[in-house]
Amino acid sequence: MTITVVGSVAYDTIETPAGKRDRCLGGAATYFSLSASYFTDVRVIAVVGEDFGKRQEAVFEAHKIDTRGIEHTAGKSFFWEGSYLENLNEAKTHNTELNVFAAFNPKIPDAYRDSEFLFLANIDPVLQRRVREQMPDVKLVAGDTMNYWIKDHRTALLEVLKGLDILLINDTEAKMLAGNNNLVQAARVVRSLGPKTLVVKHGEFGATLFGDPAKTFRAPALPLEEVVDPTGAGDSFAGGFFGYLASQPEVTPAAYRNAMFYGSVMGSFACERFGTERMQKLTRKEIDERFNLFRELTHLA
Amino acid sequence: MTITVVGSVAYDTIETPAGKRDRCLGGAATYFSLSASYFTDVRVIAVVGEDFGKRQEAVFEAHKIDTRGIEHTAGKSFFWEGSYLENLNEAKTHNTELNVFAAFNPKIPDAYRDSEFLFLANIDPVLQRRVREQMPDVKLVAGDTMNYWIKDHRTALLEVLKGLDILLINDTEAKMLAGNNNLVQAARVVRSLGPKTLVVKHGEFGATLFGDPAKTFRAPALPLEEVVDPTGAGDSFAGGFFGYLASQPEVTPAAYRNAMFYGSVMGSFACERFGTERMQKLTRKEIDERFNLFRELTHLA
Repeated sequence: MTITVVGSVAYDTIETPAGKRDRCLGGAATYFSLSASYFTDVRVIAVVGEDFGKRQEAVFEAHKIDTRGIEHTAGKSFFWEGSYLENLNEAKTHNTELNVFAAFNPKIPDAYRDSEFLFLANIDPVLQRRVREQMPDVKLVAGDTMNYWIKDHRTALLEVLKGLDILLINDTEAKMLAGNNNLVQAARVVRSLGPKTLVVKHGEFGATLFGDPAKTFRAPALPLEEVVDPTGAGDSFAGGFFGYLASQPEVTPAAYRNAMFYGSVMGSFACERFGTERMQKLTRKEIDERFNLFRELTHLA
Repeated sequence: MTITVVGSVAYDTIETPAGKRDRCLGGAATYFSLSASYFTDVRVIAVVGEDFGKRQEAVFEAHKIDTRGIEHTAGKSFFWEGSYLENLNEAKTHNTELNVFAAFNPKIPDAYRDSEFLFLANIDPVLQRRVREQMPDVKLVAGDTMNYWIKDHRTALLEVLKGLDILLINDTEAKMLAGNNNLVQAARVVRSLGPKTLVVKHGEFGATLFGDPAKTFRAPALPLEEVVDPTGAGDSFAGGFFGYLASQPEVTPAAYRNAMFYGSVMGSFACERFGTERMQKLTRKEIDERFNLFRELTHLA
């Protein structure tokens, strides 16, 4: 099955204890699509500025990602600057420039309309909804969001949730969205808002799936010797998770479990290099070897 | 195999969002021995005051725990008062009275000397060492400690670590002990100090085993609908972990993996009621059912 993803394609300036990178290729849709491309065909909807050229385009092409839905417009691409100097688990944002994203009105290329899977990466819920409405016939819809939309754009976000099968967020976001500090109770509240399946990401402690058709399931994260850059780990998790699901003939409970592992696998790779460096240069063999490592890490003899 | 445990037998006054209990039976050795008693024979070394009577003794007797090593002396038993009103993952201590523990000089009853397993619960490392030295022939020694001893009694603690096979501590303690904020690197440093095996407890996110003979292994925690009282969850984890190991004919890598699961199982039960209430009233059937639930929670199809 083919996935269409809408989200940001951007430039990031990132500082971590391991070093600094200026204006590297980033954005949720970039991480997601690179990660998912190891499993299935991916099509991107986004907007970029004049600073996005052949070299950036080539990164997507190398992974056979369809970029016909990336709109090129006058101005500069979305830009984010952040650091993780004190805490590798939480970015400190120094600067966010929406730039061309401020006036983004996503349009779905006709060639994308037969996509069976849709991923709404973390952007303004008004835009997420507009994309969802243009693709009424998809089989499975997953999405992401963040504290900013949960706090200040709740009404728009609640409309998006109604149209989701799967929501992927972190602990803080799940508890904030539900207004409940117990994760199990919060998961029940969130699932009553639309998404039958909720995946809660716990950073270095893995992720938990709540929902149907799979029962509650916990995937670990890999204990890493060095976290070079956690930027995009959540989007890479989502790409591995949803990409694997889309690659399966049927979305069974067993497929959901494997998808949680593949999500964790891709999230762990993302942290090993700056930006999308690691996501760009993986092999399916490396991915499956790490999948087996995750199995060894968690399974009884 | 039989386990001898040295540690506190105490009274706790506990307040959590679920309510309050005054002076309930507590202490690390109490939680540990109740938990381990579902797997093997346990013998306790501790000191109590005149406030410890037949009714408290009966709790241990009901679980066939050998209490001949509990010294009765003039004065009051160790007392701790704490609350978890803002954060269920971290106790706020309101009061600690060492009482009879201040002058405790542990003596090993002759009847305990053939114990093959020894657990040094979280007490003054000087006392841990004194017990360790009196039992030179044990097969396997595990222990616990806390931030207070790591920070202010480092020299004494380092002596204890040299005599340990297994150390069970939490994330903060492991990182503090190693002076390193990366868990994988911290684990390597801690293991170079003595204990070949390190179990790091992550609270609601389970625990990780680093070491020999088992490879790195992650056990989950059960996502709980309600945490009534987390007091003693770590000691109950240790009791399940070490109790299971002691019940096995051989301490193999597979046994370590099962032990991690049984530790998590016992820790999850401990949180369901105040104090030792849940630890007192379990059945082996309930324990094994939950073990299977943990397997379902983590294993691929």
